[in-house]
Amino acid sequence: MSQLKAPPQSFRAIDVIRKKRDGAELSEDEIAGLVSAYTRGDIPDYQVSAWLMAVVLRGMTRPETAALTDAMLHSGQVLDLSWLPSKKVDKHSTGGVGDKTSLVLAPLAAAAGIAVPMISGRGLGHTGGTLDKLEAIPGFNVNLSVAEFRHVLKACGCAMIGQTAEIAPADRKLYALRDVTGTVESPYLICASIMSKKLAEGIDGLVLDVKTGSGAFMKSEKDAEFLAELMVETGERMGKQVVALITEMDQPLGNMIGNSLEVIEVVDVLHGSGPEDLRELCLELAGWMLHLGGVSKTVAEAREQSAQLISSGKALEKFRQMVALQRGDSQAIDDVHRLPQARQTSEVRAVKSGYLGAMQCEQIGTACVILGGGRERKEDAVDPAVGIVLHKKVGDPVATGEPLATMHYNQESRAERARQLILESCQIGDVGPLKRPLIHKIIRKSGE
Amino acid sequence: MSQLKAPPQSFRAIDVIRKKRDGAELSEDEIAGLVSAYTRGDIPDYQVSAWLMAVVLRGMTRPETAALTDAMLHSGQVLDLSWLPSKKVDKHSTGGVGDKTSLVLAPLAAAAGIAVPMISGRGLGHTGGTLDKLEAIPGFNVNLSVAEFRHVLKACGCAMIGQTAEIAPADRKLYALRDVTGTVESPYLICASIMSKKLAEGIDGLVLDVKTGSGAFMKSEKDAEFLAELMVETGERMGKQVVALITEMDQPLGNMIGNSLEVIEVVDVLHGSGPEDLRELCLELAGWMLHLGGVSKTVAEAREQSAQLISSGKALEKFRQMVALQRGDSQAIDDVHRLPQARQTSEVRAVKSGYLGAMQCEQIGTACVILGGGRERKEDAVDPAVGIVLHKKVGDPVATGEPLATMHYNQESRAERARQLILESCQIGDVGPLKRPLIHKIIRKSGE
Repeated sequence: MSQLKAPPQSFRAIDVIRKKRDGAELSEDEIAGLVSAYTRGDIPDYQVSAWLMAVVLRGMTRPETAALTDAMLHSGQVLDLSWLPSKKVDKHSTGGVGDKTSLVLAPLAAAAGIAVPMISGRGLGHTGGTLDKLEAIPGFNVNLSVAEFRHVLKACGCAMIGQTAEIAPADRKLYALRDVTGTVESPYLICASIMSKKLAEGIDGLVLDVKTGSGAFMKSEKDAEFLAELMVETGERMGKQVVALITEMDQPLGNMIGNSLEVIEVVDVLHGSGPEDLRELCLELAGWMLHLGGVSKTVAEAREQSAQLISSGKALEKFRQMVALQRGDSQAIDDVHRLPQARQTSEVRAVKSGYLGAMQCEQIGTACVILGGGRERKEDAVDPAVGIVLHKKVGDPVATGEPLATMHYNQESRAERARQLILESCQIGDVGPLKRPLIHKIIRKSGE
Repeated sequence: MSQLKAPPQSFRAIDVIRKKRDGAELSEDEIAGLVSAYTRGDIPDYQVSAWLMAVVLRGMTRPETAALTDAMLHSGQVLDLSWLPSKKVDKHSTGGVGDKTSLVLAPLAAAAGIAVPMISGRGLGHTGGTLDKLEAIPGFNVNLSVAEFRHVLKACGCAMIGQTAEIAPADRKLYALRDVTGTVESPYLICASIMSKKLAEGIDGLVLDVKTGSGAFMKSEKDAEFLAELMVETGERMGKQVVALITEMDQPLGNMIGNSLEVIEVVDVLHGSGPEDLRELCLELAGWMLHLGGVSKTVAEAREQSAQLISSGKALEKFRQMVALQRGDSQAIDDVHRLPQARQTSEVRAVKSGYLGAMQCEQIGTACVILGGGRERKEDAVDPAVGIVLHKKVGDPVATGEPLATMHYNQESRAERARQLILESCQIGDVGPLKRPLIHKIIRKSGE
């Protein structure tokens, strides 16, 4: 044995790349080293993209996934909300078409005494985004400073803002690189991206709504379940209470798609009406939020309490309060004509009779993007007024000439392209399809 | 069907990355598009490194490998040597320790009437490089222009130079990126790198010497065979005659390691003496070069002819000619004391008796690098004078205190580290090991 020991080797990105390439498990230190060096700008993009591709193709163990989440979480500021006496619980959805539950859930859970410090994203591709929906309310400001965010949260129990530069900067840098190197599609990287941002909110519990079906990012049930289990385990490893619901996204959620239209439907639900699927999913998710927040012993009890907070008008009042605190036009909540409205509407009519057998849900989302209601690239502007109102959902009988949907639009040429897509996406058959459940599965830590 | 056809989609690197990531076969156009766009600087390093990692982990089909080789070959100039009436045949070795056959083979094949336009590399890591060996001859210029290269080739039938900027620029750029992104170790990428450079020499035939054993890049026989078969098939797909020999590199080739020392051993072989293993491998490789070049009907006949060209002095005379044409001191061929000599020598003696059972061949190479005879990084300078002379080879009986090797060195401190490595690398046991053959296998296109 040599008496001369080699000096402790400094962090070398190439060693971490090779180790992952060869299928070995990386240590916490190796992952933390890579993430912090990349965030500081000490490792070039070309090394990290090679590592990302190795992760996509080799996968990660649970401890590696937790270490990556932790390293990304601690690349920036982690909010300390311990001064708030109530439990902090948030909800996150993996994204879909017509998914506006966040706007219902934040005020609803806050009305039950839970703090909801929600940091959300914008729509990209065929899916909508919470921030775009909120900005349909005239004046609503999603770009609060951390101090303003705390103020709104303290004043009404919920606040909804966009990503700030201080929160998980590693995720922003990594996501931009993944986007251009074909390394988005990895459940491990998706998990670390979502969980690092959510845990930076300083929450105690998290309800995950993992969508599955033709309008979801994870089209197959198997992929959705895998991601959900990964996120639940990663959250629990980091000391948080996490539950994931695998929910239906084979057709749009609710009847309205488009930012202004979705705010209207949110107000409907907070009024105790609105489409059944949306109302039902909101109550189920709220039930879990309240349960994780310790407000109710059982989810069933929490659902009951949520329904009462809606019928009493308390949830709607909380929404009004939050909108006002974030400088939005709170009168628009009671007079939805104050929301942006499209200049024209046009109906999309069925060309044959039968039953609406299926909807290609991603195409419906794309039709809304074509109308101007979403963005194909990050830098695109969104028209809050446009969108689609569905008159038929999967399983409904349809007669030739009956309206399937109404388009709200501002440009004729776009409407024609969207009409074509909507027609193509609606498959009308002779028999009604088997009804898919709204909640496919509930995933909690094993043993609970 | 729409009457409006989409314009032909321009090349998008992200699509090619995703396709390879998902395990699909890339088309010739996709591979050519990627290579040419990268060589032009139109695709960033971080996209290509993600693609390279996908290739490492997904592999390539034979047509993809040929397409990559072809794209890299045509990224620069392909020499046109059709004005030379003789057949053009080259030899390439995957690198080892003490492998100096190129310096014997180029003049030997040229003496038989074959043209050998050899473009070689430098040593890196534990392996030596042909250019470094040639430069041990005072004045020898490996940096000829293409015009000078043609002139030497015409005048004496062989010329030996380094990589030029015009030859396969894509390989230079890709290799630099692979080196820092953990994507060197892929037989497909290694094949394309080697074959694109060799085929750019404008040759008709190629003899590949694929080393296997502890001193080779491909340590396992299986990996060496896989690479050999890949290169043979790729070359044949591109219309060239190619043969690969899998040869022994579990111990150094010949007895001398180090640039000046290896030139001395080359001269010994060209004089008809020298160590048996080196002489034998040179005759076998020369036999194949002459056979592919159409000089002899059988390899056996060609070996016989090669032996005669050595014993007649014609091969040595050809070497003198080439050295002179490339501005080297040709008198050094006949008076090797004119070659650089180290100031000091020291013997490494056996500490026990028995048989030399094995040598950790890579360690012997590293010991030579430590003495200053090789480079750990591309920018390191090489001391041509230093090296190691082995007195024992695997299977030889050894007595305590007997010299295993002599080190030639210029720095005392380096010698002590090298001595330690040499001692560690020589395993002395009670019984002699089974002798491994020099030529493990010969790989030609199936059916030949």
